[in-house]
Amino acid sequence: MKLTVEDLVNIGRGAAFLGTGGGGDPYIGRMLATSAIQEFGMPEIIEPDQLDDDATVLTIAMLGAPTVLTEKAACGDDVDLAIKRMEEKLGRKADALIPIEIGGVNSMLPIMAAARLGIPLVDADGMGRAFPEIQMVTFNVYGVSCTPLAVTDDHLNALVIETGSAKRAEDLVRVSSIELGCSVIMSSYPMNGKQVKDYAVHGTMTLALEIGRAINRGRKEGDPVEALVDYLQTTPYYNQCKVIFDGKVTDLRRETTKGFSIGHCHLTALDGSGRTMEVAFQNEHLVARENGELRAIVPDLICMVDRETAEPIPVEALKYGQRIKVMGVSAAPIMRTPQSLEVFGPKAFGLGEEFVPIEDL
Amino acid sequence: MKLTVEDLVNIGRGAAFLGTGGGGDPYIGRMLATSAIQEFGMPEIIEPDQLDDDATVLTIAMLGAPTVLTEKAACGDDVDLAIKRMEEKLGRKADALIPIEIGGVNSMLPIMAAARLGIPLVDADGMGRAFPEIQMVTFNVYGVSCTPLAVTDDHLNALVIETGSAKRAEDLVRVSSIELGCSVIMSSYPMNGKQVKDYAVHGTMTLALEIGRAINRGRKEGDPVEALVDYLQTTPYYNQCKVIFDGKVTDLRRETTKGFSIGHCHLTALDGSGRTMEVAFQNEHLVARENGELRAIVPDLICMVDRETAEPIPVEALKYGQRIKVMGVSAAPIMRTPQSLEVFGPKAFGLGEEFVPIEDL
Repeated sequence: MKLTVEDLVNIGRGAAFLGTGGGGDPYIGRMLATSAIQEFGMPEIIEPDQLDDDATVLTIAMLGAPTVLTEKAACGDDVDLAIKRMEEKLGRKADALIPIEIGGVNSMLPIMAAARLGIPLVDADGMGRAFPEIQMVTFNVYGVSCTPLAVTDDHLNALVIETGSAKRAEDLVRVSSIELGCSVIMSSYPMNGKQVKDYAVHGTMTLALEIGRAINRGRKEGDPVEALVDYLQTTPYYNQCKVIFDGKVTDLRRETTKGFSIGHCHLTALDGSGRTMEVAFQNEHLVARENGELRAIVPDLICMVDRETAEPIPVEALKYGQRIKVMGVSAAPIMRTPQSLEVFGPKAFGLGEEFVPIEDL
Repeated sequence: MKLTVEDLVNIGRGAAFLGTGGGGDPYIGRMLATSAIQEFGMPEIIEPDQLDDDATVLTIAMLGAPTVLTEKAACGDDVDLAIKRMEEKLGRKADALIPIEIGGVNSMLPIMAAARLGIPLVDADGMGRAFPEIQMVTFNVYGVSCTPLAVTDDHLNALVIETGSAKRAEDLVRVSSIELGCSVIMSSYPMNGKQVKDYAVHGTMTLALEIGRAINRGRKEGDPVEALVDYLQTTPYYNQCKVIFDGKVTDLRRETTKGFSIGHCHLTALDGSGRTMEVAFQNEHLVARENGELRAIVPDLICMVDRETAEPIPVEALKYGQRIKVMGVSAAPIMRTPQSLEVFGPKAFGLGEEFVPIEDL
C-alpha cells in the first residue's frame, strides 16, 4: 500500500480516535511524518503476511507524558539512533518497523522512522489502541520479550536495556524517561515475521485511515459522529460501539506525574437531566462511570470526540466547558482474552471493577 | 604485586578508612573477594606504569546505598555481565580493571572481578577516597567520558548507557539503581593506559593495605589511632592529618533516600568540655563542624574510627553511644585543584563553605 500525504491527516485523526485520549497529539505526529516524507519519500506500508517468517521487525514509538510530547518532539537523529542501537545489539538489520500502538503520535512516528530508514512499515500494531505502559501489548501477552530495547532522546543520550520481565523494563524506561524530560524515543519488542503475523493486531493503520475518512465524509454529509459509528460497525474489531454520553466538561483534573498524564474528567449531560459521567485516565482513558455506574472499561476503548465535528480530543487538549460525545468501542478479540486481561485489564490499572464487554453494558 | 588472602583484611580495613564512611562494608567486600579468589585464584595487581598506553582499562564498582549493599551483594555473574556488555559495546576486550574509588566494598569488588575475569587490577583509583556520585572522579574532571557504561544486577538485568555528560549519566544510573533495589554493579569510564597513568590517583590499593597494617601494628603495640596517624604522615597524599574530635555519638539521623544514605551524626566530647561536633554525610562524610565552626570539608577526608581499636566505622554502622575519634585527612593534590573542586568541592554537595585544606584549619 502506498499512502499519500493527504492520507496522513486521516490516519492521524483516526489514530487519535483509537488512541482513546492518549498516544499523543496527531498534529505533532503529522508534522513529524510529513517532514520526514518530504526529505526521504513515503515509506511502503505492508501487510503482516508480506513479511518473511524470519524477518527482523522492531517497534518504534515515542514514550512519555503526552502533555510533554507536544513540546518536546523527536528530532529524527534520535529515531535513527534507537534503531541503530537495536540493530547493533541484535547483530542484524531491521527488515521492517511496526507501531507498538495506534495513537496520534505513535502511528505517525513509525511512518517518519520507516521513511528515514528506507524500510517498510507493517500495517498492524500491538494493541489496536493506545496504552500507557510497555508491558501492555499483545506481544508481551503472548511471550515476546520486550528487550533488548533502546531508549534515546534528542540530545542523543541512549540506553540499551535487557531484562527478564516487561514490567521491570517498563519501570526502568519510565524512570529514565522522566530523567530525560518525560519524552523519549523507544525501540523495543524485536520480533520475527512469524511473531508479528501471530500476535499483532492486523490492519490497524488502514483502519485508522478509514476512520479518519469516515469522520471527513460525515462532516460533508451531515453528522460526523453518526458516520463514525456507522463505519466502526463494519470493522473487524470495533463493531460494538455506541455513544455512551453527550455532555460538557464540568471538572477536569490532570497532573503530569510519575511520567504520565494522570487524572479524571467530569461531564454533565446536555439534555438537562443532571446525569454526570466521570472518565479516569492514565495517558489513556481507563473507565467511564455514569452516576457511579460502569459504562465502559479497559481494554475496551473509551473515546472522546467533539460532539459537532467528531474530532478526537486527546487528554492534554481537554478543557472546561468542551462539548463532547463519549464513545465506548470494543477492543480487538485478542485484547479481551483472559491472558490479555491479566496484563491490561482493569486490575492492571488498580480499578476495582471486572472487565465487562461494552456490548453487555 | 601478588596479594595474600591475609592482605585482604588489611586492604579492607584501610580502604574502609579511606572510604570516609562510605564505599560499603569491608566485611561484605572481603567475603566477595575471598570467595572469588578461592574459585579463580588471586589476580595480579599492577602499577599504572605497567599498562600499555593503548591498553583498555575499565572501572568496576558496586553502586547504591551502603545500607542496602550490606543485604544485597553482588552474585558474580552480574560483575561478569557488566564487563561483557562494556566489551561488546567497545568492540574490544578489557586488558585490566581499576577501582573507581577506594572503599570497603569498592576496593574489594574489583579484586573479585579481576579474579573472575583473569585480568590484572591496577593499583590506583579515581579519587583516593570514596564519593557518592559517578561524576565525582578525577577521570571526569580531566575529560574522560564516563560512558558507555554498563549497569547490571543480580537478576542479570542490564543497561548500557551513553550520554554526553557524567552528571546526566549519574542521574540515569541513580534512578535505575533505585528501580533495581538500590544496589547494582557498574562498569564505566573506559580508558586507555595513558589516561590511567595521567589521571588516576596512583598506588591507593597499596596505601589501603599499609593503612590496614599500621592499624594492626598499633593494636599490638599500644595506640592504634596514633600508629595510624604516624603512618599517614609518611604517605604521599594523606600526610596532613589529625584527630579533630574525640567524642561519643549523641544523635544520629540516617535515611536511605534518593538512592543514598543521607544524614548527620552528632558527637559530644568525652573530656567533659561540652563541645559538640556535627558530621553531615551523603554516603560519605562531607563536612565536620565543631560548635558550628568548620573543622574539615570535602574533598579532604573525614574519617571516623573506634577510639580504642581505630576500626573505621562506615556510616551504616554508626550507633548511638559509640565512642569515636574523628580524623581530618588531606586529599591527594589532584583532588584539590580548582577543576576538581568544581566537580566535588563543597558546592557540588550544596554546602555553603568554601574548601579550606585541613592543614589550614
